[in-house]
Amino acid sequence: MDQEAFALEMAVRDYECDLQGVVNNAVYQNYLEHARHEYLKSIGIDFAALAAQGINLVVTRVEIDYRFPLKSGDRFIVEVWPARVSHVRISFRQEIHRLPDRKEVIRAVVTGTALNARWRPQLPKELADILGRS
Amino acid sequence: MDQEAFALEMAVRDYECDLQGVVNNAVYQNYLEHARHEYLKSIGIDFAALAAQGINLVVTRVEIDYRFPLKSGDRFIVEVWPARVSHVRISFRQEIHRLPDRKEVIRAVVTGTALNARWRPQLPKELADILGRS
Amino acid sequence: MDQEAFALEMAVRDYECDLQGVVNNAVYQNYLEHARHEYLKSIGIDFAALAAQGINLVVTRVEIDYRFPLKSGDRFIVEVWPARVSHVRISFRQEIHRLPDRKEVIRAVVTGTALNARWRPQLPKELADILGRS
Amino acid sequence: MDQEAFALEMAVRDYECDLQGVVNNAVYQNYLEHARHEYLKSIGIDFAALAAQGINLVVTRVEIDYRFPLKSGDRFIVEVWPARVSHVRISFRQEIHRLPDRKEVIRAVVTGTALNARWRPQLPKELADILGRS
Repeated sequence: MDQEAFALEMAVRDYECDLQGVVNNAVYQNYLEHARHEYLKSIGIDFAALAAQGINLVVTRVEIDYRFPLKSGDRFIVEVWPARVSHVRISFRQEIHRLPDRKEVIRAVVTGTALNARWRPQLPKELADILGRS
Repeated sequence: MDQEAFALEMAVRDYECDLQGVVNNAVYQNYLEHARHEYLKSIGIDFAALAAQGINLVVTRVEIDYRFPLKSGDRFIVEVWPARVSHVRISFRQEIHRLPDRKEVIRAVVTGTALNARWRPQLPKELADILGRS
Repeated sequence: MDQEAFALEMAVRDYECDLQGVVNNAVYQNYLEHARHEYLKSIGIDFAALAAQGINLVVTRVEIDYRFPLKSGDRFIVEVWPARVSHVRISFRQEIHRLPDRKEVIRAVVTGTALNARWRPQLPKELADILGRS
Repeated sequence: MDQEAFALEMAVRDYECDLQGVVNNAVYQNYLEHARHEYLKSIGIDFAALAAQGINLVVTRVEIDYRFPLKSGDRFIVEVWPARVSHVRISFRQEIHRLPDRKEVIRAVVTGTALNARWRPQLPKELADILGRS
């Protein structure tokens, strides 16, 4: 990963922890999604605005390795690298590290596409161009 | 998959849908977890009771393929197959199908382990025995 | 409450519990909402279909008394009574009781309205008629 | 409200929006809870640490007036005032305002207590002292 990552700093909220006292597995997908959407916004692509226009950015596959749990009070950083872009697919590598010790928490690959109004994959050329360059 | 699956029927709740009008990606992990926990309960393993005893069943890896979205009002079935059990790891194959047409929604592999009080992997022998037989 | 309630049976899912080992406060609002939407559907009013038409049923006020917590494995019933209907407002009384002992968990009053495309309160006459009768 | 409020700035995350394209009602309770816990932490009271010691801070009643919805991309501020403290109850007034225009979003009163290991109300004297002074 020679490319510089987009990075978003966040903190655990108590309601995100489950009865084991650690952040629930599904919540990490919320973190990963939020960081991807902030990354996309930083390069001019707005998830909600696209949805309102009938273009839906969707996830087609996730692979998540859970390395170490976050718990109440933890601060962490979510990093995003656009890893591969084709005319129908985008992949992102994502990592979560606890702060300040940068302990590895999550390592993930998330693949997505854009769907038109009939839920068919169709990455708008502008999107592919922007992502291909980034 | 020659083995019979554990199957749980559920229905989409409106608050589980996001601004695209379909079930949010992270919510499927809630569905998958709930079905796994009900499966485990059906063979005598209680996630919450174990947590109260300091034994934490945790997920170490998920792979989820998103095939088709669920939306408001949809009923669906979550199926669970214990796929592989070693002395430190359990894998589950899981599928979600919409009802009544059985359209494929999700295909997943979820791998987990049990952690003792010091968050070290350690599958209790009883657990491995039960799962190995099931 | 002389009127018969709409009643929906549900069960706690482990991911709905927080680090105190009981269902998180906000989750009860999910339960209450889901039961209201199922009630509305039972009298021919579909929250999601209305939203797709630009009519948004919204909550304007909630009052919730938390009497006793639900925890992992609990089954419960959510009851709904349409309590008061005017040309701009609907109120619902809602209660949650644990099963099978009917221990009181939640007592709530939820008031709402319908908003048109410009987010102005405007209860469609058909809605007021149906709710006024029920 | 002559007293200065504790204030926490936050931003809407896309997954918090529901199929109406605005933040789901229950999510505001998450926001309110998170701000209360941060407030409590700022005066030396840690919700998670107390729970680990068997002292559970719980909400007994919420009243929320929903004035205006937040949507994707909105920034907002959550304010907290400890409003009334007795030997068994604490009340907080809370408001949410959109930023930067300070449009009123939520006005709430949240009442809580501390429960000992047998789920009986019992506000530790230290807690009452700290809150009574603040």
